[in-house]
Amino acid sequence: MTLNDIIHLLEFDAPHEHNCDITGMNTLKEASVGEISFLSDSKYEKDLESTQASAVILPASKVHLLPKHVLALCSDETYLMVARLSKMFAKPIASSNVAPVIGSGSVIYPTAYIENGARIGLNCTIMSGVYVGTDAIIGDNVLLYPNVTIYRDCTIGNNTMIHAGSVIGSDGFGYAHTKMGEHIKLYQNGNVIVEEDVEIGANTTVDCAVFGSTIIKCGCKIDNLVQIGHNCVVGEHSIMVSQSGLAGSTILGRNVVMGGQSAAAGHLTIAPFTTLAARSGVTKSIKTGGVYSGFPLMEHKLWLKLQAKLAKILQA
Amino acid sequence: MTLNDIIHLLEFDAPHEHNCDITGMNTLKEASVGEISFLSDSKYEKDLESTQASAVILPASKVHLLPKHVLALCSDETYLMVARLSKMFAKPIASSNVAPVIGSGSVIYPTAYIENGARIGLNCTIMSGVYVGTDAIIGDNVLLYPNVTIYRDCTIGNNTMIHAGSVIGSDGFGYAHTKMGEHIKLYQNGNVIVEEDVEIGANTTVDCAVFGSTIIKCGCKIDNLVQIGHNCVVGEHSIMVSQSGLAGSTILGRNVVMGGQSAAAGHLTIAPFTTLAARSGVTKSIKTGGVYSGFPLMEHKLWLKLQAKLAKILQA
Amino acid sequence: MTLNDIIHLLEFDAPHEHNCDITGMNTLKEASVGEISFLSDSKYEKDLESTQASAVILPASKVHLLPKHVLALCSDETYLMVARLSKMFAKPIASSNVAPVIGSGSVIYPTAYIENGARIGLNCTIMSGVYVGTDAIIGDNVLLYPNVTIYRDCTIGNNTMIHAGSVIGSDGFGYAHTKMGEHIKLYQNGNVIVEEDVEIGANTTVDCAVFGSTIIKCGCKIDNLVQIGHNCVVGEHSIMVSQSGLAGSTILGRNVVMGGQSAAAGHLTIAPFTTLAARSGVTKSIKTGGVYSGFPLMEHKLWLKLQAKLAKILQA
Repeated sequence: MTLNDIIHLLEFDAPHEHNCDITGMNTLKEASVGEISFLSDSKYEKDLESTQASAVILPASKVHLLPKHVLALCSDETYLMVARLSKMFAKPIASSNVAPVIGSGSVIYPTAYIENGARIGLNCTIMSGVYVGTDAIIGDNVLLYPNVTIYRDCTIGNNTMIHAGSVIGSDGFGYAHTKMGEHIKLYQNGNVIVEEDVEIGANTTVDCAVFGSTIIKCGCKIDNLVQIGHNCVVGEHSIMVSQSGLAGSTILGRNVVMGGQSAAAGHLTIAPFTTLAARSGVTKSIKTGGVYSGFPLMEHKLWLKLQAKLAKILQA
Repeated sequence: MTLNDIIHLLEFDAPHEHNCDITGMNTLKEASVGEISFLSDSKYEKDLESTQASAVILPASKVHLLPKHVLALCSDETYLMVARLSKMFAKPIASSNVAPVIGSGSVIYPTAYIENGARIGLNCTIMSGVYVGTDAIIGDNVLLYPNVTIYRDCTIGNNTMIHAGSVIGSDGFGYAHTKMGEHIKLYQNGNVIVEEDVEIGANTTVDCAVFGSTIIKCGCKIDNLVQIGHNCVVGEHSIMVSQSGLAGSTILGRNVVMGGQSAAAGHLTIAPFTTLAARSGVTKSIKTGGVYSGFPLMEHKLWLKLQAKLAKILQA
Repeated sequence: MTLNDIIHLLEFDAPHEHNCDITGMNTLKEASVGEISFLSDSKYEKDLESTQASAVILPASKVHLLPKHVLALCSDETYLMVARLSKMFAKPIASSNVAPVIGSGSVIYPTAYIENGARIGLNCTIMSGVYVGTDAIIGDNVLLYPNVTIYRDCTIGNNTMIHAGSVIGSDGFGYAHTKMGEHIKLYQNGNVIVEEDVEIGANTTVDCAVFGSTIIKCGCKIDNLVQIGHNCVVGEHSIMVSQSGLAGSTILGRNVVMGGQSAAAGHLTIAPFTTLAARSGVTKSIKTGGVYSGFPLMEHKLWLKLQAKLAKILQA
């Protein structure tokens, strides 16, 4: 697809011809020559001056921040334009002609389905009903219990175990909204990286990244029915107990513990060695490790004090 | 099954022979001649006088409200009678001899299972481990990711995408209770209708209706691990974020947004353009769109004020 | 594996040779001769004097409570030793050479997978994508909807129905923690017993026991997306509504009702005929049946009173 095609498709005004090929979309920071990028959140303005993208969709008021050699495509609805464009660059379900590679000692159950381009390491057990997508990479000694789904491009580290029914790499929940109230899907181009020595419980879901990777770092232990949104990073040796959830782009430091049914909103950073009690709800970043409770969240000591005060009010 | 058979089975007193065939059960409003209905909730009393049902199970005290030509079957435990009877009319898992119809351009993975009587539209992708039940209808350009289950009689609209592991049409959670504390299943005869341009995330569950349909209207976007109970209606372009839930028979207007881990009780109506913050819990119908929070639910502004007051109490 | 092997593996000091075979691990109470046990929680001290285990891992300070004929293996990190040892006794995924037995009248869909050693009763329906593990026992008239996973050694009672995508017998969430913050898996040797006349909804998860059994007693009705932790016992005719959860080792009496999104912490006992309102969170055992709400939990009447007081504070 050429830049001209994109200009035409999204109905931009552009005085000149732009015949260069555009091979993908990416963030301002990660884009290379031949990719198109965008500014939909002002906190990324600082990345405009150094972007390597060939073209950038952005509000007219920000064009002056862009280097001269980068084509500016002006829109008041940047995010909507990005969503529309994302469909053009969406990856097909299956796009490889290379037969899957199965490592020595690995057992693949007959009703598992391994797409072309996937690679399975040594001594794995891939049980019945498992799906491993195109270009997914499964390490050594991995155990995938029945009916696990690994979407395309995802990576599962050595010695990792995923229990039945869990889904790794489903699309992140991202949409642009029209003035008529419709939601236009932002196709998700990224993947999930699950590192080594991770255990993931049953019927848990981990969404892939919009761009780049959702990452579950080494040694993490994730329980059943947990939700991990797109572009999250779960730090080394962190624990997420059953029915807890992370909205998109939240980053947990190492050895964070999230109690049962706890949750964190999106785009937050949670300090290493933070413990979130069961049911707690995080809406602001946590800078200092410690034990926190409640919704709104507070130090666990304060939460206990609040409950004591409420008990008094009740008796009054 | 004749009306006599039913009278005998449920041990009703009936002085005369009733040889007419009964072909099904239905609500007072929807029942046709040849169907049996019931009154288990007094709010439906108004439907008695105009029902087309051939027989109605109801408390003796309500018999006078029923037209003379409709047979009254009196019981103090109407709902229990209905549950017992529902088993007789439960649909079999598979009941068609007609080979499934697969539209042109559709790809069915080899380990997908399509029951007889199902119809798949044009250009669909039905991935590995997917199950499509008897008489289910899948529209055009539908993408069903691995291990999705579509129960019998459900309908999936054009351009809809359902992520891995989700279940459409599982039985609603409905039981009558005996005096001994046992729960008698109310077999669920209805279906789920998912309209066009819907996206449903991974490991989400949508229950079928007792009678009639659970409906997900066009343009809805449903995240991972969401629960939608029997007979719910989710309005056009509504959004349900991860781990949110709807109990049975609740109706969302268009463009409702339910935040993560929010929930609504059953039999409520939620106004169009209502936004429910993460974790909010709805126990009464909402008549005016707006932003609501908390459990018990209140306007979001009030919730913020309450939190400020609690913070003061904590400091006192 | 001999006791010498274990002593060597876990680097215990032991002056003599111990050639006796050790065939498994178990709790102090349940262990037989030839098994190894441990004391990691002081509340089980009382079981030391009567244990039948051949060896016990325990803190040096407790050795005097152990009968002379039982070998004491002293450690300050008992639980960590137990976790390390558990891997040695972990059961393989599939370990039987006996072809599965399928009872008369049962229908097994072609993409279901039944391991060797499993037994399916009479008149069952085992739908597509279902997995039934080694030595699992499925009763008569059981209906397993598509993509259900039953782990090895689990038992499903007569007339039980499990909806699509549910997982029975996934590993309990149990780890010992090293001083470096790593989590060492406690391999789960137990199973799940689902008794007769149970219905389990879609995408629900029930973990197996560490030792012994997680038990869902007869007549229980479990909704969609419910989590039941390892070693829980759900009493007869109990009801768990969608998205509710039980942490490990909690015991519900008969006819307990857990509302939607409610939860209970681990190692609690909940009295028969207790009703927990939607969203309630239990952190202490409940000795008397009744209706409870809130988090922290209180009698429902008190919760209503508290909400009224908070409403007044808000208006002040």
